[in-house]
Amino acid sequence: MNISIDAMGGDNAPKAHVEAAEKAIQAFPELKITLVGNEEEIKKHIKNDKQITILHTTEKIEDTDKPTTAVRRKKDSSMVLAVREVKEGRADACISAGNTGALMTAGLLHIGRINGIDRPALSPMLPTLDGKGFLLLDVGANMDAKPEHLLQYGIIGNTYMEMVKSVKKPRIGLLNVGTESGKGNDLTKNAFPLFESSDFHFIGNVEARDLLSGAADVVVCDGFSGNLVLKTIEGTAGTLFSLLKKELTSSFVNKLAAGVLKSSFKGIKDQMSYSQYGGAGLFGLKAPVIKAHGSSDSEAVFHAIRQTRDMVEQQVVTIIKNEVAKATEQK
Amino acid sequence: MNISIDAMGGDNAPKAHVEAAEKAIQAFPELKITLVGNEEEIKKHIKNDKQITILHTTEKIEDTDKPTTAVRRKKDSSMVLAVREVKEGRADACISAGNTGALMTAGLLHIGRINGIDRPALSPMLPTLDGKGFLLLDVGANMDAKPEHLLQYGIIGNTYMEMVKSVKKPRIGLLNVGTESGKGNDLTKNAFPLFESSDFHFIGNVEARDLLSGAADVVVCDGFSGNLVLKTIEGTAGTLFSLLKKELTSSFVNKLAAGVLKSSFKGIKDQMSYSQYGGAGLFGLKAPVIKAHGSSDSEAVFHAIRQTRDMVEQQVVTIIKNEVAKATEQK
Repeated sequence: MNISIDAMGGDNAPKAHVEAAEKAIQAFPELKITLVGNEEEIKKHIKNDKQITILHTTEKIEDTDKPTTAVRRKKDSSMVLAVREVKEGRADACISAGNTGALMTAGLLHIGRINGIDRPALSPMLPTLDGKGFLLLDVGANMDAKPEHLLQYGIIGNTYMEMVKSVKKPRIGLLNVGTESGKGNDLTKNAFPLFESSDFHFIGNVEARDLLSGAADVVVCDGFSGNLVLKTIEGTAGTLFSLLKKELTSSFVNKLAAGVLKSSFKGIKDQMSYSQYGGAGLFGLKAPVIKAHGSSDSEAVFHAIRQTRDMVEQQVVTIIKNEVAKATEQK
Repeated sequence: MNISIDAMGGDNAPKAHVEAAEKAIQAFPELKITLVGNEEEIKKHIKNDKQITILHTTEKIEDTDKPTTAVRRKKDSSMVLAVREVKEGRADACISAGNTGALMTAGLLHIGRINGIDRPALSPMLPTLDGKGFLLLDVGANMDAKPEHLLQYGIIGNTYMEMVKSVKKPRIGLLNVGTESGKGNDLTKNAFPLFESSDFHFIGNVEARDLLSGAADVVVCDGFSGNLVLKTIEGTAGTLFSLLKKELTSSFVNKLAAGVLKSSFKGIKDQMSYSQYGGAGLFGLKAPVIKAHGSSDSEAVFHAIRQTRDMVEQQVVTIIKNEVAKATEQK
């Protein structure tokens, strides 16, 4: 199995990517990794190049670049080349921590959609209180979703959680403003009956306030709503942590007490962290394309590699293709 | 000035309402309050009935009641009678901590919309790091908003923040998935130019992750999105506080240290609390109708009364009416 990595994307590139690649090769001896980017910069961090190939390029897509223009013009960028490794059969899957929109564009352009999936979905795993996490999709690939898109997200999420996360009969929930059926906007009202007549384990509407308590294993929504929810969680957690920090350092006594509790606070931060869950899949493409968080450290990139490897090994894309075909036939 | 209060709505009714009413009469000597509900139960808590009238009824709308049916059938419920006090000119405004949908229905049916406002908006103040708070609207009155509805919310929010909260030139933001213009779904893309050509101080798109840092004074969105954001904030804060509690009581040493920090933790909880901000206005109706949080204690109800009184005194409804008329003429 070969995974290509855009070694120049993200805040900690290429160091985090090189370290993660070396760790992954040790953990999964059958793996080969292609690091795409500036050879000189990459080599600085390499300690052991076993199973690692460097594909050299100096061009790079920036976070501020406009996705469609960047992908078309920067044909030799590390991101586009990493995606083309998959297109041309030299890699089974690819990973980038760079510009999300550009990665989606490159994926659509060079790898393409699974038949029957109208719109791929950006799909991160988010933390829950019980440590199991849930898959939220879509968080921003497709802003104006139709009911049938949401159903496709349900099929994708169900397959991913079952095959990669080993969750038996994943609980699929529809993100909504109330748990009763009949609640919501036109989109969720029209999607609800499609979910009810689907094959997977649909548990009905779930409310945003219950997500982190683990109300469902897969939560389906349009990309606009998912993006709002994702960023509201980030913003609220960030605000609370900064309030906490301010209070805990406000006096000498507080600092002493906070020192005792330091590992507890770190435990909470870790529990709320995305890094152990890997990256956000661009599910619905013909091969696994994983978007790692822009601020990924080597541990986060490692988990993204692990997740990508699991997706290839479990043939998730093929299964999604078959499930979508089945659902389409039933109509 | 007379304010009618549904004394039976909410988890702490009627005790919290009676205590709040008495406190409000002391604070604002010109105020008269009509408490609508079970006279016997209300009287149990009354210590000083100066300026307070009881309008007796035993019927009550439950939180689980279907809004439209409940408002039509339970004509003598404390909520409907409190709203009718306004309709029939015996009160200038009303407050309820009961069923939100029913209060909106009763308001639309008995008080009616301001000319030029197509859909009233449920509009709570939410806390920010700097303690000033921001107005978020709509959080659930109108699930499928059109661009012109969002513009009307902008006018409403601008007037409220200027007149009641004394914010000069309130910063009006459009809730979106990115700050750049051109971002978003069809709704926000079409609303953006309407805001740009408006009279108020439009600061562009704001992202969900920046809300609690005080990115804008008024944040405008459709009711579905607003409800998701509101409940995600609640859910995330709740999850973090419960993680914190678990960690802080996990050992004897932790308990000791946590004891020292108790007032700090309470300070953070208070800072993130809605109660000092009053209730959520059903803005766009012909008189102030305020929805207090279902779990409001007497302090929260008191602040809702203060807020309602300010709205009447500042003639917010008349000003909104004029501003909407102006905006409509300009078209």
